[in-house]
Amino acid sequence: MVNETKRILEDVKNGVLSVDDALLRLKVEPFTDIEFAKVDNHRKIRQGVPEVIYGAGKTCEQISGIIDVMKENGQDKILITRIEPDKAKDLSKNYPITYYADARIGFYGTFPKADGIGKIVVATAGTSDIPVAEEAAITAESLGNEVTRIYDVGVAGIHRLLAYKEELMNASVVIAIAGMEGALASVVGGLCDCPVIAVPTSVGYGASFGGLSALLSMLNSCASGVSVVNIDNGFGAGYLASMINHR
Amino acid sequence: MVNETKRILEDVKNGVLSVDDALLRLKVEPFTDIEFAKVDNHRKIRQGVPEVIYGAGKTCEQISGIIDVMKENGQDKILITRIEPDKAKDLSKNYPITYYADARIGFYGTFPKADGIGKIVVATAGTSDIPVAEEAAITAESLGNEVTRIYDVGVAGIHRLLAYKEELMNASVVIAIAGMEGALASVVGGLCDCPVIAVPTSVGYGASFGGLSALLSMLNSCASGVSVVNIDNGFGAGYLASMINHR
Amino acid sequence: MVNETKRILEDVKNGVLSVDDALLRLKVEPFTDIEFAKVDNHRKIRQGVPEVIYGAGKTCEQISGIIDVMKENGQDKILITRIEPDKAKDLSKNYPITYYADARIGFYGTFPKADGIGKIVVATAGTSDIPVAEEAAITAESLGNEVTRIYDVGVAGIHRLLAYKEELMNASVVIAIAGMEGALASVVGGLCDCPVIAVPTSVGYGASFGGLSALLSMLNSCASGVSVVNIDNGFGAGYLASMINHR
Amino acid sequence: MVNETKRILEDVKNGVLSVDDALLRLKVEPFTDIEFAKVDNHRKIRQGVPEVIYGAGKTCEQISGIIDVMKENGQDKILITRIEPDKAKDLSKNYPITYYADARIGFYGTFPKADGIGKIVVATAGTSDIPVAEEAAITAESLGNEVTRIYDVGVAGIHRLLAYKEELMNASVVIAIAGMEGALASVVGGLCDCPVIAVPTSVGYGASFGGLSALLSMLNSCASGVSVVNIDNGFGAGYLASMINHR
Amino acid sequence: MVNETKRILEDVKNGVLSVDDALLRLKVEPFTDIEFAKVDNHRKIRQGVPEVIYGAGKTCEQISGIIDVMKENGQDKILITRIEPDKAKDLSKNYPITYYADARIGFYGTFPKADGIGKIVVATAGTSDIPVAEEAAITAESLGNEVTRIYDVGVAGIHRLLAYKEELMNASVVIAIAGMEGALASVVGGLCDCPVIAVPTSVGYGASFGGLSALLSMLNSCASGVSVVNIDNGFGAGYLASMINHR
Amino acid sequence: MVNETKRILEDVKNGVLSVDDALLRLKVEPFTDIEFAKVDNHRKIRQGVPEVIYGAGKTCEQISGIIDVMKENGQDKILITRIEPDKAKDLSKNYPITYYADARIGFYGTFPKADGIGKIVVATAGTSDIPVAEEAAITAESLGNEVTRIYDVGVAGIHRLLAYKEELMNASVVIAIAGMEGALASVVGGLCDCPVIAVPTSVGYGASFGGLSALLSMLNSCASGVSVVNIDNGFGAGYLASMINHR
Amino acid sequence: MVNETKRILEDVKNGVLSVDDALLRLKVEPFTDIEFAKVDNHRKIRQGVPEVIYGAGKTCEQISGIIDVMKENGQDKILITRIEPDKAKDLSKNYPITYYADARIGFYGTFPKADGIGKIVVATAGTSDIPVAEEAAITAESLGNEVTRIYDVGVAGIHRLLAYKEELMNASVVIAIAGMEGALASVVGGLCDCPVIAVPTSVGYGASFGGLSALLSMLNSCASGVSVVNIDNGFGAGYLASMINHR
Amino acid sequence: MVNETKRILEDVKNGVLSVDDALLRLKVEPFTDIEFAKVDNHRKIRQGVPEVIYGAGKTCEQISGIIDVMKENGQDKILITRIEPDKAKDLSKNYPITYYADARIGFYGTFPKADGIGKIVVATAGTSDIPVAEEAAITAESLGNEVTRIYDVGVAGIHRLLAYKEELMNASVVIAIAGMEGALASVVGGLCDCPVIAVPTSVGYGASFGGLSALLSMLNSCASGVSVVNIDNGFGAGYLASMINHR
Repeated sequence: MVNETKRILEDVKNGVLSVDDALLRLKVEPFTDIEFAKVDNHRKIRQGVPEVIYGAGKTCEQISGIIDVMKENGQDKILITRIEPDKAKDLSKNYPITYYADARIGFYGTFPKADGIGKIVVATAGTSDIPVAEEAAITAESLGNEVTRIYDVGVAGIHRLLAYKEELMNASVVIAIAGMEGALASVVGGLCDCPVIAVPTSVGYGASFGGLSALLSMLNSCASGVSVVNIDNGFGAGYLASMINHR
Repeated sequence: MVNETKRILEDVKNGVLSVDDALLRLKVEPFTDIEFAKVDNHRKIRQGVPEVIYGAGKTCEQISGIIDVMKENGQDKILITRIEPDKAKDLSKNYPITYYADARIGFYGTFPKADGIGKIVVATAGTSDIPVAEEAAITAESLGNEVTRIYDVGVAGIHRLLAYKEELMNASVVIAIAGMEGALASVVGGLCDCPVIAVPTSVGYGASFGGLSALLSMLNSCASGVSVVNIDNGFGAGYLASMINHR
Repeated sequence: MVNETKRILEDVKNGVLSVDDALLRLKVEPFTDIEFAKVDNHRKIRQGVPEVIYGAGKTCEQISGIIDVMKENGQDKILITRIEPDKAKDLSKNYPITYYADARIGFYGTFPKADGIGKIVVATAGTSDIPVAEEAAITAESLGNEVTRIYDVGVAGIHRLLAYKEELMNASVVIAIAGMEGALASVVGGLCDCPVIAVPTSVGYGASFGGLSALLSMLNSCASGVSVVNIDNGFGAGYLASMINHR
Repeated sequence: MVNETKRILEDVKNGVLSVDDALLRLKVEPFTDIEFAKVDNHRKIRQGVPEVIYGAGKTCEQISGIIDVMKENGQDKILITRIEPDKAKDLSKNYPITYYADARIGFYGTFPKADGIGKIVVATAGTSDIPVAEEAAITAESLGNEVTRIYDVGVAGIHRLLAYKEELMNASVVIAIAGMEGALASVVGGLCDCPVIAVPTSVGYGASFGGLSALLSMLNSCASGVSVVNIDNGFGAGYLASMINHR
Repeated sequence: MVNETKRILEDVKNGVLSVDDALLRLKVEPFTDIEFAKVDNHRKIRQGVPEVIYGAGKTCEQISGIIDVMKENGQDKILITRIEPDKAKDLSKNYPITYYADARIGFYGTFPKADGIGKIVVATAGTSDIPVAEEAAITAESLGNEVTRIYDVGVAGIHRLLAYKEELMNASVVIAIAGMEGALASVVGGLCDCPVIAVPTSVGYGASFGGLSALLSMLNSCASGVSVVNIDNGFGAGYLASMINHR
Repeated sequence: MVNETKRILEDVKNGVLSVDDALLRLKVEPFTDIEFAKVDNHRKIRQGVPEVIYGAGKTCEQISGIIDVMKENGQDKILITRIEPDKAKDLSKNYPITYYADARIGFYGTFPKADGIGKIVVATAGTSDIPVAEEAAITAESLGNEVTRIYDVGVAGIHRLLAYKEELMNASVVIAIAGMEGALASVVGGLCDCPVIAVPTSVGYGASFGGLSALLSMLNSCASGVSVVNIDNGFGAGYLASMINHR
Repeated sequence: MVNETKRILEDVKNGVLSVDDALLRLKVEPFTDIEFAKVDNHRKIRQGVPEVIYGAGKTCEQISGIIDVMKENGQDKILITRIEPDKAKDLSKNYPITYYADARIGFYGTFPKADGIGKIVVATAGTSDIPVAEEAAITAESLGNEVTRIYDVGVAGIHRLLAYKEELMNASVVIAIAGMEGALASVVGGLCDCPVIAVPTSVGYGASFGGLSALLSMLNSCASGVSVVNIDNGFGAGYLASMINHR
Repeated sequence: MVNETKRILEDVKNGVLSVDDALLRLKVEPFTDIEFAKVDNHRKIRQGVPEVIYGAGKTCEQISGIIDVMKENGQDKILITRIEPDKAKDLSKNYPITYYADARIGFYGTFPKADGIGKIVVATAGTSDIPVAEEAAITAESLGNEVTRIYDVGVAGIHRLLAYKEELMNASVVIAIAGMEGALASVVGGLCDCPVIAVPTSVGYGASFGGLSALLSMLNSCASGVSVVNIDNGFGAGYLASMINHR
C-alpha cells in the first residue's frame, strides 16, 4: 500500500501522472457496486484460487450479477455455497457450474491442483453430520487441498476413531465435525499435533438446542490446538484449513 | 401398606384394637416434626444403612436436632453432606463424627461392610474435579460399596483413560465426572457395558457457564446407558450407584 | 484384552501364528466400514439381544445397508428407533420388520423372553407423553424386560399416582416421563427405593421452552436415586433401565 | 374520581371555589416529593393497614425520610422489607420498630387484628426456604391475616405433605415456596381448591440456576389455580394472599 | 377424610361392613382408568360447575372417551380448551358442544349463572392478544363470572388505559394480558386494589423471544398484588380469577 | 393540558359552559373505540405527517376499520407496516394504497416533501439485510426525510465501508443494519459524529440465534452515540431517525 | 479527506512538498501511542467539548498518562467515567478534578455553558436507579446541556409520572432509566414526541437476571421513538442525548 | 504405532524378547500416575519445546509434584498458566521460575529461540484486554515465536487499527482479542490473508454477559479464516498460533 502510494506520488512529481489522475487512483473504488451488492475486487486474482459467493438468501439474478462482475475482473473459478439444487440447475444453464448436492455447493470452473503442504482430514461423529462435512471437504478441495474423509467415528465407539489414528496423526489440519455432545473435537485434539478446527452441527434433539451443546463443548475443549467456527459452518472450516495448509 | 391396613382392620373386627387406636395407627405421622424440619421416619432402619442429612445452609443446632431425632429412631449411621470443616468440628464435640475434608462429608458411626454385587468406579477428567468425585466415592463407601478411583483421565489424552479399560469394563457402575466439555461420559459410556452416571462439574471458565457446557454435553451423549445428575452432585451419583450396585 | 493379547503372543512364540497374522489380529478392524457408517462389530452377538440403529435422518438405503452388515455378523434381532411409518413400511418389504407406531420403532426379528430381575415401570404425567413412554417401553421389552405402563398420573392429581404405589414400590426400575413442570420424577423418586430414570419431554407450551423446564426440574430433584436423560429420549431410558434390570 | 371532579365543578359554578383553587385541587400532587423518592399519598389511610417501604438499597436516612412523610400523612403502621439487622437497629433508635430477623422485615407500629375470611397457609419444600417463607408470613400477618406455617414438606417425601392435607384443603389461600425443582406448587395445587401462590426460591445449586429451575417449573404447573411471583419474593406473595383473603 | 375413615372403621366394628369391603372402600380408585387417561372423579360434582379437558394433542376419540366417563359421573357441563375448529365440529355431531372460535374453546352444556362476588376485567395491550384474552374470558364466564373486556389499551398510549380507570378500580380481579414488553401488568397493578393476574403472550418478534420478554417483565413487576401464569395461558388466568371471585 | 383545563373552568364560571358539558370535555375520550382496537386520536393531525398501523396479525377488515376511523379524523396519509402482498392488494381495491414489496409497507396517500435538517443514511452489512433496511428507509421517506441507501458494506471488507466515509460523516442520522456479528454499528459509530441507530437483524444461522448475536454486539458497542432497537425493527429505526432529523 | 489529499498532491506537483514529506503526511498517525493505549487525536478539539476516558479497570498511572497526552493536544475539559472515589482523590492531587460521587464521574476543567436546543429530562423508575441516572445527567451537563431530573416515578404509581407530563412533553430528549420490569420507557415513549433513550439497570433480584428483564422489555417497547443502550450505561445515554440536543 | 508393534512381534519371534516383556511393552503406561494427576509422557521431549501445566485450582504441592515428574522425564522447559503471584513466588524458591505478572504465567527454564515461519500479531480492542493478550503472547514466545503486540485498537476508532495494516497483512497468524462487542475479529479477518484466532474476553458489563456477547459476535464473523477459542483463553490462542506458525 505504502509502496504503491509512493510510486503514485513519484509519478506525480515526475509529471508522469496528473494530480487528477493520481487523486483518482488513490481513491479508486476497490469494489464494483451493483446496488444490492458491493463485489470486492481487492482480493488478488491469483491463478487457480476461487472467489466465493455466499448463496443463501440470494436470488438467481443476484448470483448471476455477481458472477458476471467477477468474470469481468478475470476470475475463472467461483465457489457458490449454500445454494439449493433448483437454483444451481438454473445457473448451470448459463454458466459451467458443477453442483455438489451433499455439500450444497456449486462450482464455476475447474478445481485447482492440490498444492498444500499436507492432507486435510475431515472427520464426523455421525452419519447425519455428513452434509456439513462435505461443505468443508469440497471447499477445501476447491481451494487446492487433498482431503481425507473419515465419517461416523463418534467417541461413543472410541475404537472406530482409534482405527484412524495414523491418518489423524499425519494430517496437516483436522476438521472435527460433530453435533450432540461434540466430544469428537477433544479426543481428536488429544490425538493430533496439528491444528484442529471444530465444527459444531445442529444434529441432535432436545437438549442439543440446535447445536448449542456441541458448540459449548468444543469451546471448552481441554485439548490444545482446537478452535471453533459457527454451528454448521463447513465452509468456514474448509477455508481456514486451506489457509493453514498453504502456509 | 395394604397388608398393614388389612391387619389393623382385622384387629378392629376381632376387638383387639379399638376404633380410636386403629384411627391413630392409620393416621400415625410417619415423621417427626421439629418445626424447621420434618424428619422422615418411614425409611426402614436397616442394619448398616445410613440416613442422610443435607448439610448446606443448616446450622449446627439444626443438624444436631435432626441427628437426635434419628438416634431416637434407632439410627446408628448418619451421612452429613456439604458440611464445612468448622461445623463438622463443632458437631464432633458431641457426636462420633468422622470428617472427609475433600468430600465435605461428615459421617456419624462406622462404615458398613461393602456388600454390593461389584465395584463402583469413580473417574474424573481432571484434578479439579476431585472434590465432587470424593463426595460420590465416600457416599458410595458409606452405603456399603467398594470404590475404585481413577482421577485425571480426561479425553484429551485418551491413552490415559484407555489404560484403565479393564477397570472400567469390569465395573458394576461407573460414575464419570467432568467439567469443561464433559466428554468423559460419552467415551466411558462407549467402553462399558454397565450403567454410567455422569456428573457435570462447575470446573472451567468462560463458556463453561458454571457447568452448563458439561451438563448439556452429557445429556446429549450418544453412548447408551448414560444418565445425568445435577452439576456437582457427587452425593446423588454415589447414592444412585449404590442402589444399582445392590440390585 | 490383555489375555487375548498374551495368547496371540504365545502363539507367535510357538510358531503357531505368523507375525503378519498376529499383526492382523492385533489390528483387526472391530467394525465394518460402509462409508457413510462404521458398523460396530465389537458388541457381543449374544443370543436374544438386539442391535440398535438410530433411524432419524437415515435413508431407507442407509438403514438397509446397516441391517445387511449386522445380519452378516450373525445378528438376528435389530431395533430401529425414530423411524417414520413410510420408511418402516418400505423396509418391511425386504425384512421381517414389526412396526410400533406410537413408539416410532421398527423391530427386525422377534422379541426375546423377559429375563430381567424384576419389572420396569413406565409412568407418564400426561396423555401427550405417551409416544416417548412407548419408545421407552418397547425398547425395554425388545431387550428382554417385563414392562408395566402407568400413564396420565401427573402430580396435580396426586391420588391417581398414589393408587399405583404398590406397582411403583415393587418395581426394579421406574422410568418417569413428564413435560411441563416435570414434577413426576421427584414424587416417584420419593416413593420408590429403586433407581428412577427421569425423561423430560417437549410436551407443553410457553415457558416449557421445548422441554427445558421439565429437564431443569428433573435435574434438581431433591429425591435420591433419580437421574436424567435427554429430552424425549425414551430409547435411552429404556436401554438404561434394561441394563439395571439385568445386573 | 369523576364524582370528585363533578363536585369541584359545581363548587366553581356556585362560586364556592375560585378557578385558581379548583385548578389547584384538580392538579393536586397526589404524592410528596422528597427528591430521591416520591412518597405515594393516594393509597387510602385505612385504620390498621400498613404502608410498605422496600428497604433494599436504601440508606437509613432515606428510610427515615420516607417514614417521616408517611407519619405526617397519618400512617401509624409501616412495613419495611429487605432490611439488614444493622439498619433496623439504627432505625429502632428513633422509631418504634420491631425487627423479624428471619424475614428481614422491620415493622413500625403494632400488627392489626386478623380479619381475613380464612387462614393463609405458608408451606415450604425445605428448611432453607424458611427466610422467604417468613417474609411472606410476617407480611400477611402485618396485613391482618392468620397464618399457618408448614415447613420442610417437599414432594420427595410426599407423606409429609399429605399429613397436612386438612390444613391445605381448608386454607383460604396457600403460598407454596420451593427452590430446586419447585414441584411443591403443583402437588399443593392439585390438593387445594383455593388459589395457590407459588414462590420460587434461589435455594439450590448447579442447574437450579439461581431459582430459574423452580420458576419455570411453577409457571408450567399443570394444576389449576396456581400463579407465580418473582424468585424469593415472599413479600409479594404475602401481600397478594392478603388481598385474596380480604375479598 | 378422617371422618370418612372413622365411619368405615365403626361400621367394621359394628359388623355392618366386612373387612374386605372396608378394605375396598379405603382403597377405592378415586378416578376412572381408560388407559390413555385417568379421569379424575374426586372433584365434587357441584351443580353448574364445569369439568375441564385440555384438548391440545388429544384425538377426537380420546376426548369423546373422557366426556363419556364424565357424563357417567353425572357431569353436565364440560369445558374443552385448546381445541381446533375441525375437532370441535366433529365432536359437536355427537355432543351438544358450543364452539368459541377466538378462544379455541368448546363447551358441553350451558353456561352457569354468574354468581361471583364482583366483575372480572380482562384487558389486553394489543389487538393480537385477543385470542388469549378470549380463552380467559370464556373460561371465566363458563365458571359463573361476569366479564368486562377492555382490549387494545397498551401502555404506550396511556390515556386509552386511563379511560377505563373506573372499570379497573371496581373490578374484583383483573386479568392483564400483553406480549412484547408486557408493561400493562405493572400499570394496571398500580391502578387497582384487587389481585391482578398477568398473562404474558407470545405476541411480538425479535427480542420478545416467544413471550420471554413479557414473562420476565411481569415477574419483575414492582406493583403489589400481581402474579403471573404461563405464556399464553388464558385458561389458567380465567380459572384462577374465578376462584378468587368466588371466595 | 393545564391551560385547556383553566379555560374550561373559566367558561364554567362565566356560565358559558354547563357543568355537565365541562365534565364531558374534561372526560372526553381521546380515542375511538372499535372494539378490537382503540384508535388514538390524540396525535396531532398535522398536514403531511402520516399515522401508522402495525399490520402484522391484523385482518383486512381490521385494517380497513382503522383506516376509516383515521380518515374520519381527517388523516390523509397512513403508513401500514408488516403487511403481506396479498392483503395490500386487497386493501388497494378500496383505498389509494401504494405497496413497497421489499419493505412490506403499504402507504395510503402521497409522501410528504422531505423537510428534515439533513440526510438519513441507511447502511446494511449484507444483501440479506435489505428488507429491514427498506422498511427503515420507506418509513423515513414517508415521514418527510431524504434517505441515502448504502447496502452490503459489512466490516469484513472494511474498504467498502470506508469508500462511503463522506456520506456517513455528513449524515444527520445513520441507521446501521446488520445480522450475524453486527459489528457494522460500532465501526459506523466510530466514523460518525451523528446519532447511530443500530438495527440487529435475524439474518444468519447457528450461533446467531435469530439475531441475538447481533443484538448483544450492538448493545455492547464501545462507540459513543449508538443506540439499539429490536431485532428486524426497521420501522422503529426509521421513525426515530425522522424524529431526530426534525429537531 | 479528499480535499486535504488533493492539496497535498498539488503541493507535491508544485514542488512545495517533497515526496517523503507527502508520504509522511498521508500516513500521519492520527493518534498518540502510549503502549497500553492509543489516544485518539482525530476528534476535533472544539472549545468547550470534553474528551472522555473510560476509567473502569484503568490504573491511576494509565489515566494520568492519557490526560497528559490530551492536555498536550490542547484539551482542557476531560470527562472520566466509572472511576472509584479513591482513584479520583489520587488524581485530584495532580489535576483540577471535580468528583461526582453518585455518578462515579471525575471531571477535569470546568463545565461548558448549556447550548443545546432544549432540555434533557432524566427520569428513573426507582430510588436505586439514581446512580445510573446521575451518570447520564452529569455526562449531559458536562457536554453543554440543561438537565431536568425526575426520580422515582415508576409506572406502578402512574400518577406520580403523569404529574410530570409537562416536563416530559416539552423535553428535547428523555432518558428513561429503570430496572426490574423496565416499563417506564414504554409509558414515557407514549407520552412524548421526542426521542426516548431507554437505559435498563441491573436493579432488581430474582428473575430480573441482572438487568436482562428490563433490557428485553425496553427493546420490545411498542412506543415509537424509543431506543436502548447497554444495561447501566448512563454515560452512553447522556452522550447520545447531548448529540441529539445539539442537532 | 503399527511399526513399533511389528518390531516387538518380530523380536518375540526371534526370541530376542520374552512374551512377558513384550506384553509389558505393549501395555506400558504412557504416563506417570501420581494419584491426583496422570502426567502425560507421550508428548515427544523435543529440545526447546515446553510442557504445560494448567495452574488454576492446583496447590503448590501438586504443581511441584508434576514438575518433578516432568523433570525426571527430561523436560527442561515448563509453562505454568493461570498461576497467582503468591504461588509462583513459593515455587520459585525451589525451581528456576520466571513469573510474568500480566499474563499470570510462570516459566521454568529459558525461552527457546524463535523459529516460526513468520510473526504472530497479538491485537486487542482495549486496554482491559491486555492480561488475556499477554497470556497469549507469552505462551507464543515460550513456544518459539516472535510476537508483535498491538493493543487498544478497537473498531470504534477504525483509523487506529488501519494504522497497523502492514503489520497485520504481513503476519503469519493474528490473535484478535476483544470483549464487549468483539467486532475486532471481523475487521481484522477482512484485512488479513492469514488465519485469525479470535479470543473473546469477559471485559465489559451489562449485556456483555461475561463475554457471551463477544463470543457470539466472533462465532458469527462474516470474515473468512476466523476461528474462536474460549472466553479469556489466551493460552489456547497462543498455543494454536504457534502450531500454525510452525507448519
